[in-house]
Amino acid sequence: MSKAAKNEETKFFNTGTTKDPFVFASGNTLPGITVAYESYGRLNADRSNAILLFHALSGSQHAAGVTTAVPHTDERWTKDIHHGWWDLFIGPDKALDTKRYFIICANYLGGCYGSSGPASINPATGKPYAGSFPPVRTSDVVQSQLALLDHLGIQKLHAVIGASVGGLLAINLATLHPERVKLVVPIASGCRTTVLTRLTLFEQVLAIENDPHFQGGDYYEGKAPEYGLALARMISHKTFVHLDAIERRARQDLKQGGDTLSWYRVQHNVESYMLHQGKKFVKRFDANTYLRIADMWLRFDPLRDAGVSSYEELFARSAAAGQHYLIFSIDSDFCFYPEEQAELVSHLEKAEVSNMHITVHSDKGHDSFLLEPQLYTPHLAFTLDGRWNKASVDRTVQEVE
Amino acid sequence: MSKAAKNEETKFFNTGTTKDPFVFASGNTLPGITVAYESYGRLNADRSNAILLFHALSGSQHAAGVTTAVPHTDERWTKDIHHGWWDLFIGPDKALDTKRYFIICANYLGGCYGSSGPASINPATGKPYAGSFPPVRTSDVVQSQLALLDHLGIQKLHAVIGASVGGLLAINLATLHPERVKLVVPIASGCRTTVLTRLTLFEQVLAIENDPHFQGGDYYEGKAPEYGLALARMISHKTFVHLDAIERRARQDLKQGGDTLSWYRVQHNVESYMLHQGKKFVKRFDANTYLRIADMWLRFDPLRDAGVSSYEELFARSAAAGQHYLIFSIDSDFCFYPEEQAELVSHLEKAEVSNMHITVHSDKGHDSFLLEPQLYTPHLAFTLDGRWNKASVDRTVQEVE
Repeated sequence: MSKAAKNEETKFFNTGTTKDPFVFASGNTLPGITVAYESYGRLNADRSNAILLFHALSGSQHAAGVTTAVPHTDERWTKDIHHGWWDLFIGPDKALDTKRYFIICANYLGGCYGSSGPASINPATGKPYAGSFPPVRTSDVVQSQLALLDHLGIQKLHAVIGASVGGLLAINLATLHPERVKLVVPIASGCRTTVLTRLTLFEQVLAIENDPHFQGGDYYEGKAPEYGLALARMISHKTFVHLDAIERRARQDLKQGGDTLSWYRVQHNVESYMLHQGKKFVKRFDANTYLRIADMWLRFDPLRDAGVSSYEELFARSAAAGQHYLIFSIDSDFCFYPEEQAELVSHLEKAEVSNMHITVHSDKGHDSFLLEPQLYTPHLAFTLDGRWNKASVDRTVQEVE
Repeated sequence: MSKAAKNEETKFFNTGTTKDPFVFASGNTLPGITVAYESYGRLNADRSNAILLFHALSGSQHAAGVTTAVPHTDERWTKDIHHGWWDLFIGPDKALDTKRYFIICANYLGGCYGSSGPASINPATGKPYAGSFPPVRTSDVVQSQLALLDHLGIQKLHAVIGASVGGLLAINLATLHPERVKLVVPIASGCRTTVLTRLTLFEQVLAIENDPHFQGGDYYEGKAPEYGLALARMISHKTFVHLDAIERRARQDLKQGGDTLSWYRVQHNVESYMLHQGKKFVKRFDANTYLRIADMWLRFDPLRDAGVSSYEELFARSAAAGQHYLIFSIDSDFCFYPEEQAELVSHLEKAEVSNMHITVHSDKGHDSFLLEPQLYTPHLAFTLDGRWNKASVDRTVQEVE
């Protein structure tokens, strides 16, 4: 966290009307939706320097600087998230240089940080949508954020960047609307939902569904399904963080209490630490949003969305549009395994899409993309500046001479 | 499964009285306990051919042949388990040769297949112990089964064998009572509970604890915590079976229904298959027993039990007693990773315990030990017959000449 983190502010964009509703991929409609977003840097005169950044499962539109309050987030805007989740990457002279680029990050449709989601008020009833909020697909999130870009007058993005689930969204946008983006940067992500991920996500769905307080999602007037959400978070947390780090942090954490469940007595720092992390997460997140995103991840299918039958066909669109992909793998990643990025790269190669694949070595697991800017910044900076191929590097060297 | 599987029968051994109760490691007591067991083959005149086999988490005393009914198991003795879980390994001329050895397998104390457990009737109240049944440690299970051996007049076992959690029990017995066993065979097991296993087990504990029907374990008069137990089973199942196999089986399984949870619609064969497996398991298992065993596994600490401070000290007892260890690893095991057996072997080496470590190659994951007798039988047979060292092999060759 930089010491002089800049104060930032979440803005709200509304789209859709009763006559011209927002239509989800599922066929459901909402009369209007809100997209909560932040932006950093300035849009240039020809609107060609915009970068769209997709956050991950538990992230928000608040990627950089400090935002101390966001309307419509109830008690969820806790101190834990006042600092932007990618502040180490966004700012003057950082990987995403705010002196050169205009960076936009928006909360997912279905989210709980200001974009329309299950906790939002349904104007027809005056109560939260709750269980009745439609299932969300990645293409719905993409559609909602393209509407925001239209509103900002941005026809073509310089780049779309996303880590983890955000990478899936980046690929979805780039292949559904190849004319709207030049550079595509999926970090620690993939191009399909593997069986292992499917099982892990399904466990998380069941953990929430089976909580006595879930009630099909209609819990806003009562107690929230806290233990179910905490368990879901623990199941996923295990895939984000390197196990050695969990053990180390658990040992350092002095605030361990002797939690007692109804029968089981928590007896080990690692259990206590994970339960503590789960409970902390529950304060800042909504179980209905968690379910929408888990469901979206489970249903992720860029082939179906693009109406094609193979990845070669899918990425032929990227090749035709002249897109360039920069793909990052983390060698200790247990959430999106390096094999998944290798599979993506192999599809890109077959479709003859310009690409570069970088594997960073880290002992931090999936979370490395949040913690170690030094591993990503050089390639991010060079790629964003157009210095990603041999010709451009040679040109740079000539300029220096 | 052999076609002419022999009919077998579960027997019951009772020990302890109000005046001389069974004392758990926790200090809790029960006025008397029952140990359900089966045996195969015949005990020889000098009682030197006995092999004790420990089952795994969801197993039972019924290891070989066919047992169609077991008293005191309510509705849990389903057709799924009428065939012994290790029938491929036990019988005439099989790995555990019933023409030569007397094989005993007993249900864990705390179990739900006939040994005293949470579903057993508390004589003081006339109702099931339920939540009040004490926590069980591996040393309690060992103590209960040594009492059975005393009853059968077996002073020293020829071998103790256990796979998975059963391997932890084998090591616990062998190091707590080194004078009572000659050969020790842990299969796909380890010597401590790793952080990954701890987290996975803790998730399973929470899944059951958070079920609306769990009620601290006092659910026998109402609905059982079925979804919680099914979720726990799914979390562990994922570590037992190779993911490719799950995918393959899910594809073959034609009985997939369109399960709908309160919000989430099950939409993929893999999810449906896992849910189906979880629900099937719930019919044959008791959540309270599952919790006792998960808790036992989490608390496993052979150093504490033996009152020593290092593994070298622990296994010095094995060395002094002249024990020999045969350790099996499965290269695709995601439940007990091969590294865990390597760690065990390194401790044995340091303590100068005679040992042999065999890694089998399989694409079946942890479950290989149930499915592929051909990978284990040669070394099991040779080791049980005393032909595990070079001298004995040379001797055998001489005999043949």
